[in-house]
Parts: sequence; C-alpha cells; structure tokens
Amino acid sequence: MATSNGGTDVKSSRTFKLASFYSEVQTSRLNHALPFPSVLRKPFNVDDGPKSSAAGNPDEIAKLFPNLFGQPSASLVPNETGLSGSDQKLKIGVVLSGGQAPGGHNVISGIFDYLQDRVPGSTLYGFKGGPAGIMKGKYVELTSEFVYPYRNQGGFDMICSGRDKIETPDQFKQAQETSKKLDLDGLVVIGGDDSNTNACLLAENFRGSNMKTRVIGCPKTIDGDLKSKEVPTSFGFDTACKIYAEMIGNVMTDARSTGKYYHFVRLMGRAASHITLECALQTHPNVTIIGEEVAAKKQTLKNVTDYITDIICKRAELGYNYGVILIPEGLIDFIPEVQQLIAELNEILAHDVVDEAGAWKNKLRDQSHQLFDFLPEAIQEQLMLERDPHGNVQVAKIETEKMLIQMVEIELEKRKQAGAYKGQFKGQSHFFGYEGRCGLPTNFDSTYCYALGYAAGALLHAGKTGLISSVGNLSAPVEEWTVGGTALTALMDVERRHGKFKPVIKKAMVELEGAPFLKFASMRDEWAIKNRYINPGPIQFHGPASNALNHTLLLELGAQA
Amino acid sequence: MATSNGGTDVKSSRTFKLASFYSEVQTSRLNHALPFPSVLRKPFNVDDGPKSSAAGNPDEIAKLFPNLFGQPSASLVPNETGLSGSDQKLKIGVVLSGGQAPGGHNVISGIFDYLQDRVPGSTLYGFKGGPAGIMKGKYVELTSEFVYPYRNQGGFDMICSGRDKIETPDQFKQAQETSKKLDLDGLVVIGGDDSNTNACLLAENFRGSNMKTRVIGCPKTIDGDLKSKEVPTSFGFDTACKIYAEMIGNVMTDARSTGKYYHFVRLMGRAASHITLECALQTHPNVTIIGEEVAAKKQTLKNVTDYITDIICKRAELGYNYGVILIPEGLIDFIPEVQQLIAELNEILAHDVVDEAGAWKNKLRDQSHQLFDFLPEAIQEQLMLERDPHGNVQVAKIETEKMLIQMVEIELEKRKQAGAYKGQFKGQSHFFGYEGRCGLPTNFDSTYCYALGYAAGALLHAGKTGLISSVGNLSAPVEEWTVGGTALTALMDVERRHGKFKPVIKKAMVELEGAPFLKFASMRDEWAIKNRYINPGPIQFHGPASNALNHTLLLELGAQA
Repeated sequence: MATSNGGTDVKSSRTFKLASFYSEVQTSRLNHALPFPSVLRKPFNVDDGPKSSAAGNPDEIAKLFPNLFGQPSASLVPNETGLSGSDQKLKIGVVLSGGQAPGGHNVISGIFDYLQDRVPGSTLYGFKGGPAGIMKGKYVELTSEFVYPYRNQGGFDMICSGRDKIETPDQFKQAQETSKKLDLDGLVVIGGDDSNTNACLLAENFRGSNMKTRVIGCPKTIDGDLKSKEVPTSFGFDTACKIYAEMIGNVMTDARSTGKYYHFVRLMGRAASHITLECALQTHPNVTIIGEEVAAKKQTLKNVTDYITDIICKRAELGYNYGVILIPEGLIDFIPEVQQLIAELNEILAHDVVDEAGAWKNKLRDQSHQLFDFLPEAIQEQLMLERDPHGNVQVAKIETEKMLIQMVEIELEKRKQAGAYKGQFKGQSHFFGYEGRCGLPTNFDSTYCYALGYAAGALLHAGKTGLISSVGNLSAPVEEWTVGGTALTALMDVERRHGKFKPVIKKAMVELEGAPFLKFASMRDEWAIKNRYINPGPIQFHGPASNALNHTLLLELGAQA
Repeated sequence: MATSNGGTDVKSSRTFKLASFYSEVQTSRLNHALPFPSVLRKPFNVDDGPKSSAAGNPDEIAKLFPNLFGQPSASLVPNETGLSGSDQKLKIGVVLSGGQAPGGHNVISGIFDYLQDRVPGSTLYGFKGGPAGIMKGKYVELTSEFVYPYRNQGGFDMICSGRDKIETPDQFKQAQETSKKLDLDGLVVIGGDDSNTNACLLAENFRGSNMKTRVIGCPKTIDGDLKSKEVPTSFGFDTACKIYAEMIGNVMTDARSTGKYYHFVRLMGRAASHITLECALQTHPNVTIIGEEVAAKKQTLKNVTDYITDIICKRAELGYNYGVILIPEGLIDFIPEVQQLIAELNEILAHDVVDEAGAWKNKLRDQSHQLFDFLPEAIQEQLMLERDPHGNVQVAKIETEKMLIQMVEIELEKRKQAGAYKGQFKGQSHFFGYEGRCGLPTNFDSTYCYALGYAAGALLHAGKTGLISSVGNLSAPVEEWTVGGTALTALMDVERRHGKFKPVIKKAMVELEGAPFLKFASMRDEWAIKNRYINPGPIQFHGPASNALNHTLLLELGAQA
C-alpha cells in the first residue's frame, strides 16, 4: 500500500480531495487572485549589483566558496525584450527543507507559474520529504493539476519536508547523480538558515564540478531569524505570529473577564525571540520575556522569577489578580547558569550513583547547587529522569511555562509570609506552537511567497546560482516591491567547530537596539501595570486588517507600526 | 485603588481604551451592522402559546414552582400598535453568570437597544461580577457610551461574571433588597443550565413575594449542553467550536506535512462532548472519543486505549505514522471504572498508610487494582499525590490527553514485541480551552445574541417572568427567525439530593440517535484510515463562510450540514 503515497495516486486523490474535503475558506483561498509586483508583470532583465563580501571573516568565506564568493546581487529590472538567450526550456527541481511555515506552497506555485508564463514547456520536479528526496531521487513532476489544490494553502504536504542535510562527500555525490539523471538546470531550496547554508554549499559543489545545475535559496522560517538588509523577512513569520496573537488576545480577554488567572504562554521559537516580541507588540501583555535581553543582561532564573513576581505583586496592590505573560520557547537556552547546571548534571549522572540522601549534589559547583535547590521539585525530577538516548537531559522537554508558574508560586508564598503580598495567584499554562506552522497563509505571506518563488524562477532562468531570492520594499504597495537575489555568501560568517571553519548564516537574533525591541521596551512598563490588552482577532482574508503587515517588519522597515 | 474598577473610572478608561487599544478587526466589529429578525423591526405584541408542563416529574415541578408552573410559551408577533399599556419606563438589571462565552456583550447590547428603541427613558443596570453583584448590590448603570465599546466583542469584561449562586433564604432576601432598592421591573440572567435554574427559582421567589421584579433567562455556554426544542442552541458554542476547529485544522495540516506525530487534542467541555463532536464534523480527525458513547457502551479505559491503538496500527500498515485524535475534557467522568477507582483511592488515602511496597493496593477491589496497575506510572503518581484541600484526587488536573498517549505507547510497545506493529509513534498533546471562551463572536453568535437580548427586553416589557429568551428557525435567513420565550419550568426535571427533590434543567448530552452523532458515526471509519482532514481556517467576518452555521445546529434543525 506504500504506493498510495506515490505521485500518480496522490495526484488523483488530490483531485478527489479538492472536490470533497476543502472547507469553504480553503476553497475561496484557492481562487484568491494574488497582487503582483509590477516588475514581474512585464518583460524584465536581471541586472547585477556591486561585488559582495561576507557577513564576517570574508577571507575564510572566500576560501570555502572559491567559485561563488563575491558574487553580486541581482535585481529584476523592466526591459523591452526580456531575458536574452532565454528560449531554452528548463528543468527545475524544488525542495522544502526543515520545519513547516505558512506559504511554502506559494513559493512552489510562483516557480511553477514563472516557468508556465516565461519558459513554456519547462518541467518542475518536487523532491519529496526534504533533501533526502534529492539524495534518494524521490520526486514527483509538478503539473498544473497537481499544484492547483495547494495555492494559498498552509502546510508543506504537497511534497512534504525533511530535516536531512546534504553534507558528506557521498551525499554531494548522490545529489549530483540525481541532478544529472533529471538533467536539472536548477534547484530551489526553500529553507531556514541551515538549509540555505547547505544550498550555498551545494551551489559551490555543483559549480566546482562544472555541472549546469544552479541553486537558489528561499528564506523560510516562522521563527523570523533568517533575515538581513536584503532579505527583510522570512516567510511564515507573519502568519504564525498572527495565529498566536489571535489566541493570546482571546486569553487576555478571558483573563480580564475572569479576573483570577495568570496565563503563562510559551511561544515557539527556540533560537530567537522574534515571535514572542512580535506577539507582544500585537497584544500588549503584562510581562514579556525576551531571551536575547536575558542573555545580554546575564540574568539568572531567579532574576526572571523576581521580575515576574514583582509585577504580580504590584498588580495585586491595584486589585488585579490576573494577567498574561509571554515566554519564548528557548528561554532556558539563554540563561547561562541553567546551561552550566545541565552540563554538570549530564556529567554526574553519567558517572556517579545518585543517592537518595542527596550526597551526589555536593559534586555540583556552588552556583549550580544553589540553582538546583532553587528549582521546584517537579523540575528537579524532570532534570534527573528525562534523558535522551545519549543520557543527556532533554531541555526541550522542560515546560518552561510550568516551571516559571511553580517558581513564581514559591516566591509569592515567601512574600505572603513576609506580608509583602496579599493577592491570589492561579497560574494557567499554554504552549502555542504546532497551531501556527501550517495555518492558511495571510495575504502578506501568500503574496510574498509567490513573489519569492517567481523570482527564484527568474534567477535560475538568468543562469544565476548561489543566490537567495529577495523581495524588498515591502512597506510599499505590492506593485512597488523590488525583486531579485542576494549572494548567499554575503550572508555568511564562519564558526570554528572541531578545529575547522564551518560556514554559517548567522541567525538574526532580536536586536536590543532595533526598532521593534525599543518600541516594546518603551511601552512594557505601562503594559505591566495598566491593562492595555489588544485582541487582534482571527486572521482576515477580506476587509479590515486583511493586508496589514506585522509590527516587526514595519518597524524594521522604518514605517510606523 | 479598588475604586479604579468602579463604574465611573471604568467608563472613562473605556473611552480611552477604545481610542488606543482596539485592533483593526475589533474596531471593524464595533461598527458591524447586525441583521435583524423582521419581527423585531416593527411593532409587535407578545402572544401566549398553550400551557406548558415539565421535562420530567411535572407533579414535583408544580410543587416547587407553584406560581410559575404551567406558564405558556410566548411569541413575538407583528401587530399595528405594539405592546398595549407599555409606555411606562422600565428599570432592568442584567447579570452574567458562570464561564465566559462569546456573545455575552451582544445580549446586553440587545437589551439596551430594546429599551432605547421601545421604552425610551428606561434604565439598564449591569450587576458586577455575577450573581454576587446582585446580592451585594454592586452594579453600574449602562449608558450608550458604556455599552458601545463592547458591541460584537468577545469576553464578559463589560461587567464581568461570577459563579456564586442565589440559593439560601438569606441570599434570596439580599436579592430582593437590591431589586427593591433599585426599583427593578426586571432582571435578565445570562447563564448556563444551573444559572437558568437559579433564574427560575428567583422568578418564583419574587412572584411569591408579590414583587414586581420579573426574571428572564438567556441560554449561554460554549459547551452546547443547554438546549431543547424551543432553545435550539446556547450562544458561544458556535464561536468556540470554530476557534478550536481552526487550531485542529492547522494541526492536521502539520501532521500530514510532518508525517511523524500523533496529535492528541483535548477539548474543553466537561459534562457533554458536543464541542468534540462539532469539531470532528468540521475537521474529520482520525479518532474522536465521544464521552456519551463511552458511557453508553460501558467502555473501560482499556477499551478506549485499544480502539485508538487499533487505528494507529492499521494506519501504520498503510504507511501513515501520523494522525489527529480528539478527546473531550470530561472523558474520565464517563468511564465508570475510573470513577470507582478514584472513590476507593480517596477512601484508602484518607484512612490508611500508603506503604512503598504497595501492600495498600490490596485494599482496592480487584477491578480497581487491575485498572491501577494498567495506568502509566506518572498517572498513578498523579492520582496519589495531587489532592484538593479535602484530600480528594483532583480529576480535573489529570491531563487525559497525556495519559492516553502513555497508555497507547505501552500498548504499541506490546504489539511491537509481538510483531503486530512495525510503525513509529510520537505523541504530541494539546489542550484547547481558554482560547475559545472569549474570542470575537462569529457573525452567527453576534446576531443570535443580539436577538436573544432584544427578546429578553421585549418579554420583560410584556410583563413576563420565568421564561428563557428563545430565538428559533435559525437555519432560515435571519429575517425569518422567530423570537419569543419558553417557560423555564418546561425545561425542568427533578433530582433527588439528600432526600429532597431539587429542580434541575437537565444538561443536553450528545444523543447517540441524534443527527450530528449519526452523521459522525457514518463517516468515522473512513476518516480513521483515509485522511479526510479539513482545515476550516480562521473565522471570517466578511466573504466566504462568514455566515455559515455550525454542523451540530444545522443537522439538529434537519438541514444538510
């Protein structure tokens, strides 16, 4: 029955599914006409900008990418005749890499439509299940009938995704073989920072092997941490944040109506706190913890607990025994002392007997010992018991929002004993994550992704490689958006791992001097005490707010959010 | 600072809030013009129907409600002159009782507008914080300026709610005193089954004391378990289900895209499984557990676990190692053996020493002992450790979705050992509850609630008491909706408690012979194996699907969902 996942069957089942299993909103989205940057409406050429460098350590990047380093950016500019020498049909592959983000299907639709519109007779292959599909040669030919049911739809289910990487010489060889077998002119890699780094390595490898297959990346991640001057945002961030903000807004109205709960909301986003910051700007919670600030200020878990507890106490004096608190998923990773404790625990648990009396704890350094004793019992147990197959503590399994509720409870009890707190505290925990990765993309993400895909098609058609599709001027009307590509090497720096330099696209963290954080920081004290909750409501596809950009993007673009 | 919650300050802060702290969607909802049943557009009279009886034990209900029993239903019918003898200004109070449900503010807006439109110069008081506000005389005068910012908004924050009941002779006396002090002609109680039972007792008490204050109920609860022939649905159910279904649909797309998670989604709704059933009809999950069916078939926890595990195994054979499973919040309450075990545990833990060796377990009856041993260790611990102040096991704290994941894991491991299962299983747990109680009401809930409120105003104006506001013919266009009131005693039965008869409005449970369950039952086997997921998308206020009714209501009304 495994063949029921195969290309042909899927295609026919899609047609069936489309007839019977789409909601009214899904169907209406299928037929939603996307606005289009004006440069993409007419004939255009691809112009080169100045030579590029790297985000850091250009000498090392130049060594790692001898064929690609220094490539100029590319811009699509209107001309009368279109791309010169561009009549030859193309064979292009596309792959989705890493976690889901709303809009991925529209990137593919954009590539498909580019080929249909500009290079008729071309072929688009979708590699199935992520980069493994390239290595194993698992693909499906994307036809009009196949692509249509996914237009403006969430998810990555058209060809699915995967987290494999093409890294070893053998894997590069497999990728080469597949590309040769399919006679590929180009490959589009839709992914985050790691996947785009890989895309660049693949572009370098293919170029170095004199292969004709060119590689273009596209910026995807709900986390919002793949961005630069030329790549203003990663797709999916807008939709995911708006879905979480809808839920947070509802929980805020509930908190105010009920008057007796503190809602601790953990939000997806392990490495950077962009999602948490954006949701805060959309909804005005009483407390928002930004991981980058915690790290910059070298805060301890006790500092974070005290910060939250102080606000709860102030609110109790004003008669408010309720509130909403946002926490980034990756908070623990930002607190140095927690990392230290976990490292020591891993060591001890691997080599020592853990006695009931707790003598083993004396092997912890003083600071770690104190921190361990400070943690609620349930978290202590979780740290001792939940191990991955290598015996390491599973940090990802720690429910930070529940941990903080318990730590705040303990601190409030102390203050109550001391007469410094007279309120009532009931914590409610939430984790918003999977709900946001596959929602129907907003009008912004739908349009942005389609343009990214169309641009990727154009860049490959123009013979470019090692670029990331870049659509800019996003605060202007869609007609005025700019379209082009940025050298992936220009986004890169190196990290030293096992004595070797590895190229990386550095994750874009929340900048504490950036406009979004500064706006948040200027308002949070008021939000803490006064209730300035905003309920953004569900994402609308028609009418008011349906074309609104997110605050982070607007503020970073210098527009007023 | 407690006065900052007082009427005047709130009023002025609302005006400020309205200017600055509404999202674009919230603002657009404020100005959304509601469609209106045609009977409410013109002059009308209130006609009586035939004499009513009770849902059960009419003789006992007649004894408990000597003044009200047998009251006819009331219908608003167009006439030329309007209500006769109806020029006198009215003083009306309104109270929100129990948990939040989207649309409560519109009920109040409807009452307010009725008075403005039809009895100018009248006064509407909002009792604050639920029935306690009546007893303590805490209220605010609702003015146009005060009510406006809450039109079509979610939450109960206009006057907040509470769970107190007016039950004892003293409490009835307090309610009488407040009503006399404010010279109330009427009181509208917006609440669920318990609150409407209380409303009827209050109506009986006031009538029996020859007071002029009349009492009208309104059907509120997201759980959907307050309904009858005359009261086709409780408000809030439509919005809450659509919010949960949006999230479930997103999780389904994620499951299909990722291909490696089983999402176990627990949904709010303790007593009845209407929410779970409605969400299943909207989204087509692989497994849906309906508490009423579990109870009717006297299923054990092992039966439920096996049912889920069987489907997971079948799906694994088809190559699907992912899926979505819906579980009602109250599942455990539907399983007799679990209730029995908990009762025995409460008894043992109150009186016996719990020894580490487990000798105490021999005090459990055989079936309970077996069930206890069948439970995952973490749940065993939870049962032993988490107690309420009376020493009882806190069933509500058991995260049923996590418990089922663990039980399914254990069962799958057994089958794997026996060679009957070769798949991979990763469970992800979710609880959707607080997100849905205070969302912006759908167009349906907005319109329905406004009509309920307008009707309540009309019923009080016509001198009625002990009725519940009833708006019917809901599958027809809004213009054709019927408007009236149903005798609360007609919804009642008695329960024997401590040797006395207590009146109750019986919760409307999921009917296993009803159209919604039958439709679900006819399709679930297909949903289990084939993937028929539907993503309803976010609630829309404009355009496609913005006026769609929920499946439960449509099916119960005999229309095709």
